[in-house]
Amino acid sequence: MARPGILIVLSGPSGTGKGTICKELLNNYPNINYSISATTRSPRAGEVNGVNYWFVSQAEFQEMIKNDALLEWAEVYGNYYGTPRRYVEELLANGKDIVLEIDTQGAMQVKNKFPEGVFIYIVPPSIDELATRINKRGSETPESIKRRLGSVRYELSSAYDYHYVVINDRVSEATAKIEAIISAEKSRVGRNADRIAAISKNGSID
Amino acid sequence: MARPGILIVLSGPSGTGKGTICKELLNNYPNINYSISATTRSPRAGEVNGVNYWFVSQAEFQEMIKNDALLEWAEVYGNYYGTPRRYVEELLANGKDIVLEIDTQGAMQVKNKFPEGVFIYIVPPSIDELATRINKRGSETPESIKRRLGSVRYELSSAYDYHYVVINDRVSEATAKIEAIISAEKSRVGRNADRIAAISKNGSID
Repeated sequence: MARPGILIVLSGPSGTGKGTICKELLNNYPNINYSISATTRSPRAGEVNGVNYWFVSQAEFQEMIKNDALLEWAEVYGNYYGTPRRYVEELLANGKDIVLEIDTQGAMQVKNKFPEGVFIYIVPPSIDELATRINKRGSETPESIKRRLGSVRYELSSAYDYHYVVINDRVSEATAKIEAIISAEKSRVGRNADRIAAISKNGSID
Repeated sequence: MARPGILIVLSGPSGTGKGTICKELLNNYPNINYSISATTRSPRAGEVNGVNYWFVSQAEFQEMIKNDALLEWAEVYGNYYGTPRRYVEELLANGKDIVLEIDTQGAMQVKNKFPEGVFIYIVPPSIDELATRINKRGSETPESIKRRLGSVRYELSSAYDYHYVVINDRVSEATAKIEAIISAEKSRVGRNADRIAAISKNGSID
């Protein structure tokens, strides 16, 4: 039987490159899967149910909340978004690792329901560097950049609610660090009690 | 300034290949150092003070015990062996990682004095495989092999006092897992509070 997979939760201030790291992880690491969110918003052109999102009705979403079927959820401009617990649990049971890229509020909901997850906070090498990156994107007004950078200090304090902090200086190095974290977590004693027991019984392990 | 290094403590039932893994780690990983033990036993031909051991007198060793200058120590057939705290702490402060290959009793002494260490328990893939390996060495009587295997079950239960368990099926894979553990531990939030604070202050980090 496959070893259970690991749920990896990535958060960090916006502009730190979480999305790029996620893509790198999915490219480099065949065993890792991206969690598909459920949402009540309408599919956009080209979006496919079960690929981009699970598209559900408001009533279905409310039912999921009521049945504790979501690891986390949030309402954004009247639409609901959430992480279906069953989909995640099935993949984990089949030995797949899953990465969730969500904000701190969502991450803390997951941590409550799934404390065996691995919580990683991505930070920029410096606030100056973050400012440079956001400026380069060119998609924001100076006002909104200023506001966003002002909140970064506050956001950074939530790093302490995570298990690991990874500085995204170079994407390849940050991704390698996350791969090392996943490997190390698979060796945690708490995740290997069954193996230790199996060896003690003189059975060989899988 | 260099980031502080990490103290890695390796234990496991004898015959699991801890020594081979240690050598591989020291070969592959230039930043890792082997801790040099202090001992009261006489140097053998070719042994050099500060290379193989720190050779000290009984009085000096007792003084070290009294001054809490040893991370762990034990008496074996009238000779004392121990790990000098200062040597370890100096290397760590200079950013070097250190590996200690010691038995469970010694490891638990270190854990008390140095809880920020990383404690890894190496296990064989199965007790059958361990028996095969010990038989291959050819250095033990069938009686002593039987006695040793009988105690392995008991020894394996101490795995739960460690942070990680690594199955030594292939040495190269086991060593890679330990390298991943070292890398991951360097990303632990508790080891990076100063960095998070530095980024918050808008200073860039080292």
